[in-house]
Amino acid sequence: MLTLDKIYHASFVLKDVIRHTELVRADKINTDCELYLKPENLQFTGSFKLRGSGYMISQLTDEEKSHGVIACSAGNHAQGVALAATKYGIKSLICLPDGAPISKVEATKAYGAEVCMVPGVYDDAYNKAIELRDKEGYTFVHPFDNIDVIAGQGTIGLEILNELSDVDAIVVPVGGGGLISGVAFAAKTLKPDIKIYGVQAQGAPSMYNSVKNGKIERLDSVSTIADGIAVKQPGENTFKIVSEYVDEIVTVSEDEISSAILALIEQQKMIAEGAGAVSVAAVMFNKIPVKNKKVVCVVSGGNIDVTILSRVIKRGLMKSGRLCSLCIELMDKPGQLETVSRIIASCGGNVTSVHHERASETKDINGCFLRLELETKNYEHIAQIVETLKDNGFKMVE
Amino acid sequence: MLTLDKIYHASFVLKDVIRHTELVRADKINTDCELYLKPENLQFTGSFKLRGSGYMISQLTDEEKSHGVIACSAGNHAQGVALAATKYGIKSLICLPDGAPISKVEATKAYGAEVCMVPGVYDDAYNKAIELRDKEGYTFVHPFDNIDVIAGQGTIGLEILNELSDVDAIVVPVGGGGLISGVAFAAKTLKPDIKIYGVQAQGAPSMYNSVKNGKIERLDSVSTIADGIAVKQPGENTFKIVSEYVDEIVTVSEDEISSAILALIEQQKMIAEGAGAVSVAAVMFNKIPVKNKKVVCVVSGGNIDVTILSRVIKRGLMKSGRLCSLCIELMDKPGQLETVSRIIASCGGNVTSVHHERASETKDINGCFLRLELETKNYEHIAQIVETLKDNGFKMVE
Repeated sequence: MLTLDKIYHASFVLKDVIRHTELVRADKINTDCELYLKPENLQFTGSFKLRGSGYMISQLTDEEKSHGVIACSAGNHAQGVALAATKYGIKSLICLPDGAPISKVEATKAYGAEVCMVPGVYDDAYNKAIELRDKEGYTFVHPFDNIDVIAGQGTIGLEILNELSDVDAIVVPVGGGGLISGVAFAAKTLKPDIKIYGVQAQGAPSMYNSVKNGKIERLDSVSTIADGIAVKQPGENTFKIVSEYVDEIVTVSEDEISSAILALIEQQKMIAEGAGAVSVAAVMFNKIPVKNKKVVCVVSGGNIDVTILSRVIKRGLMKSGRLCSLCIELMDKPGQLETVSRIIASCGGNVTSVHHERASETKDINGCFLRLELETKNYEHIAQIVETLKDNGFKMVE
Repeated sequence: MLTLDKIYHASFVLKDVIRHTELVRADKINTDCELYLKPENLQFTGSFKLRGSGYMISQLTDEEKSHGVIACSAGNHAQGVALAATKYGIKSLICLPDGAPISKVEATKAYGAEVCMVPGVYDDAYNKAIELRDKEGYTFVHPFDNIDVIAGQGTIGLEILNELSDVDAIVVPVGGGGLISGVAFAAKTLKPDIKIYGVQAQGAPSMYNSVKNGKIERLDSVSTIADGIAVKQPGENTFKIVSEYVDEIVTVSEDEISSAILALIEQQKMIAEGAGAVSVAAVMFNKIPVKNKKVVCVVSGGNIDVTILSRVIKRGLMKSGRLCSLCIELMDKPGQLETVSRIIASCGGNVTSVHHERASETKDINGCFLRLELETKNYEHIAQIVETLKDNGFKMVE
């Protein structure tokens, strides 16, 4: 059973396992409230997961420890289990689906785990882990639905109240529900009038649906850049605790998550993964009532693939008018490209890509298209460039 | 005159002006040493500059304060002066060349400064600032060559020694030399056997050249993504202090700076600007002797333009084999694109851009080129895709 005692005990046990992450003031994300971030992206392994697996592993018997632990994950949980096991000097084996990104596999090995690549998808890797547990005597470390794991994550709630005792609300990313269960239990037990809000991605609203309908529901599929919280079904323990202790669960869109990641980069000089940024997205886009409140957003992790980061930034630049695509219809005669280039340069635009296409069937035989990608200052700047091109007789294509 | 007393005094005065930035352990940048970062990218305004301008402004007489301060900068110094003046309740005017990025202008205004856009380049803005100083009685806040400014930056040296008293070496970015002068003076005075290393960009080696040749030298031009340290000429005070207290100055290339920025993102979840990352680049690429030492890299700022960040990431991905461009020669007949697409998909590559070109003059009339951009796992993965395409009869073009 989850108790405050257990969470305090976890806090004591984890002292030498985790890094203490200090709250960071975030002034500009939403100026209606006094906002702080709990930066678990700066935690060892780049996510809060080390806390839960660290505490659970610390509570194993010597007999259990001697057989080692096993887990199934291609993400933060794998790295948390690997480092926690290494810190306690025991063996860990992580089962991963064989399509898992190389970088994640390498990181998991680097923290001291053995890795078992399983052909197929997540469910195949999970089945393999259960099979190996039964055959070899490993202890299975569940990513969220285990009371010791939840107690470990709950230490985040204690730390927040300890550092900012007059906090009004805590906003927490929700996947399987382990993190919010621990944080909500700890915070509400100590301070019953505190508000706890959960945030899911619109593309993976399993806890959101389950709480709304009053029973555990399973999604057929999940799709979001917040892969760390793309969980099809909440746990039994976590569903129960969330139903009792969490005030509301809200969802955020992919664009909102991208904008939150970009805002954290520009304003806080901080990298969050999609799952880590959903709490910030919820406050940024007013999904929860925060006006005049002291609010803490848990930024749960920072392990974002750089390829995805690159796309997020590009999308963010496009959405703020700092990158744009133009398609211009030209007559196919000499000097046209030069004229367009000169106009754009004189307006202060910076061309980064050019694509010149000859006439398509539906067009004048002499027509052609010029597709450009430009770095611009903002939407006004784009409008100014477009107007100047039009004034010079060029026709823009949608 | 610069004294340790003055730096201690600055430290006392700045208590309520700056944020205390705690050292952060960085395990993976260079595993030969015990490396820490002094994260001044997390300082208010996103850079250390607030310290120097904050202390200088605090030391003005009431008469001087009543006339306000003036500075010339399109970057971190502008924001530092603006916020420092606002904190001390005095007026600030910042002269900027009119080509300065909108985002910097807006940030400077947001910290409470008035902004004067001057037609032309930096030197024109500087001349305008001096003219206004003489006419209106403003005090000019020099970005580096002022003893109070240097004392303010020196508080970083005190903080490092206070937190990590057995540090062996401190590595500091160098532009005009204000930061390293303060840090070197403080650290060497308290701990004479400490090593202080300065780092400049290869594209802007003004202090490097000056120290090497024993006299202040001016560069005709500077070019680097580390715009915060793109300074043509060291100051007189800073040149003197650096010559006396700094052990060595080294330079790093643009690629090394980009790789350091990317490493800080991936390993530390932290955004540094080019100037802020040169210290890390120097340790990462073994430009200085760090083996078995306790080393602190000052990460001086995090105000990187997101457009540049996007390019840095792309370059970093290309350099690590996670993004690649292929050009394939095709016979111009139906089904070719489909076959190539199928092969790449079966190898696990992810196509992000396609460009199909008809024959050029030097080619077979039926030939054409397919240019692809792919997301890949690493260099081996790229080689595997290329081999598979070749095995299927496709010809790769360099």
